[in-house]
Amino acid sequence: MRVLLTGASGFIGSHVLDLLCEREYEVHAVARRAREPRRGVVWHESDLLLPGAPEKLAHDAQASHLLHLAWYAVPGSFWNAAENERWIDASLRLLRAFGEACGSRAVVAGTCAEYEWGSELLSEDDTPLRPATLYGACKHATHVASEAIAAHLGISLAWGRVFFLYGQREPAGRLVSGIASGLLAGEEVPTTDGRQRRDFMHVRDVAEAFARILESDVQGAVNIATGRPVPVREIVTLIAECSGASERVRYGALSQRPGEPAILAGATTRLSSEVGFTPSIGLEQGIADVVAWWQTK
Amino acid sequence: MRVLLTGASGFIGSHVLDLLCEREYEVHAVARRAREPRRGVVWHESDLLLPGAPEKLAHDAQASHLLHLAWYAVPGSFWNAAENERWIDASLRLLRAFGEACGSRAVVAGTCAEYEWGSELLSEDDTPLRPATLYGACKHATHVASEAIAAHLGISLAWGRVFFLYGQREPAGRLVSGIASGLLAGEEVPTTDGRQRRDFMHVRDVAEAFARILESDVQGAVNIATGRPVPVREIVTLIAECSGASERVRYGALSQRPGEPAILAGATTRLSSEVGFTPSIGLEQGIADVVAWWQTK
Repeated sequence: MRVLLTGASGFIGSHVLDLLCEREYEVHAVARRAREPRRGVVWHESDLLLPGAPEKLAHDAQASHLLHLAWYAVPGSFWNAAENERWIDASLRLLRAFGEACGSRAVVAGTCAEYEWGSELLSEDDTPLRPATLYGACKHATHVASEAIAAHLGISLAWGRVFFLYGQREPAGRLVSGIASGLLAGEEVPTTDGRQRRDFMHVRDVAEAFARILESDVQGAVNIATGRPVPVREIVTLIAECSGASERVRYGALSQRPGEPAILAGATTRLSSEVGFTPSIGLEQGIADVVAWWQTK
Repeated sequence: MRVLLTGASGFIGSHVLDLLCEREYEVHAVARRAREPRRGVVWHESDLLLPGAPEKLAHDAQASHLLHLAWYAVPGSFWNAAENERWIDASLRLLRAFGEACGSRAVVAGTCAEYEWGSELLSEDDTPLRPATLYGACKHATHVASEAIAAHLGISLAWGRVFFLYGQREPAGRLVSGIASGLLAGEEVPTTDGRQRRDFMHVRDVAEAFARILESDVQGAVNIATGRPVPVREIVTLIAECSGASERVRYGALSQRPGEPAILAGATTRLSSEVGFTPSIGLEQGIADVVAWWQTK
């Protein structure tokens, strides 16, 4: 199969690219700037927000499968940036052009921020879709329209709702990357009290989940989650221990972002039973790997 | 107040324009082609699907109120046309630019096709939003993102879900216009068996509902509906009687469009209690008026 992979130079996308290459798929990978040549990969230099870019890309790639991960993702500012609105149109244009170029199977990255927050476990079937952020609303809007486009063009579509993640190549300024790099640089690191519980998955597991969903014929929304929320304080403590810098964490020095729920975790029935995927990297091992990776930076 | 009215030359929009002029609002009316000058109206010639057009329009108008009715509306083909996808982006760009130009109150036209069809009365609070058509999906996607943009920019937003309508200036090729003009032209007119029940409102009542919602501070989705579904056969019979051509209607000569539900009607609690509007034009009077109007064509 020939896979068109957008966001291929991003945090999740770069790990997906590794997996697809290991599986010896023919990958048409998309990034805004040219990347190093790689066996099995055709690179497309494209900014999907430019007029005509999604259509040209789909036409050039002639792929049977689409894995669309690209979106505005600048840490912190992505929650409310106007760029979210532009990605709705770019994503719909790409999906339609992919279908019209005879593509048959598409998987798109959604988010736990599409759900109304507040339940113990957010469920694809039961939890209302009432996004509290512009990011969540624009992702959900894209899903609503994508389902109709896919039905109209006969594309098989799955929508992978990503929860929280960490791992090698995480952009600076996010939770694990910020704390690990700060502590390893010898800084004091302020955090929240860390009582909020979050569903964290290692990025290699997230990438594997996307690849497995793409290979399956599962349609509709699928949470990419572990189903096991852990207090953020537990994660911070693991990072600090691995970094040998427990005394430099300032718990409670930051206040929670307004609207942050006490718990955010996803039901995993669809991912485990229908896709047949269970994450394999535990938090202790995963955090140890990440801290080791930051030590090489 | 200064109202920016899109779709001002359309079926609903032209009646809204009449009402806003009667109320002596300052109206900035938008159409793709220039219209005759009219007291109290500043015309803007604009195709909102062109790059930069929504932003320029909002900037030029500097309106306090926005009533956004423009959308792809070619009878028959609008259900599944790709143009629906383009109107998501145009609508979101317009709403953001309106808010950034200090607009404070916006009302946008939604549709009963956003709901999952099947309940007796479709309700803003209880009926799931699972559109069966590309048109319904793109309208719903626009609503989802619009709510987030409005919240972010501090715009007060209402979303008027239009059900079925008829009246003077209805475009050819729709239910009432097609049957009335066909019968008055002396043709035989094929119809379905007409057992499906629909919630029909006269376009002047629809326009009045939009004006009243705009003047109110009601936010969120509001059905623009009568709450009284009537068999389509009853409407066809009224048209035929007014046209003196009952013998030329061929009931059952057309089959139902696939997926057409037996009943489509809207709960009216929000419109009647919160907005304080009840339609005033009954079906018999309304159809008689429309047939008289078609006789002048």
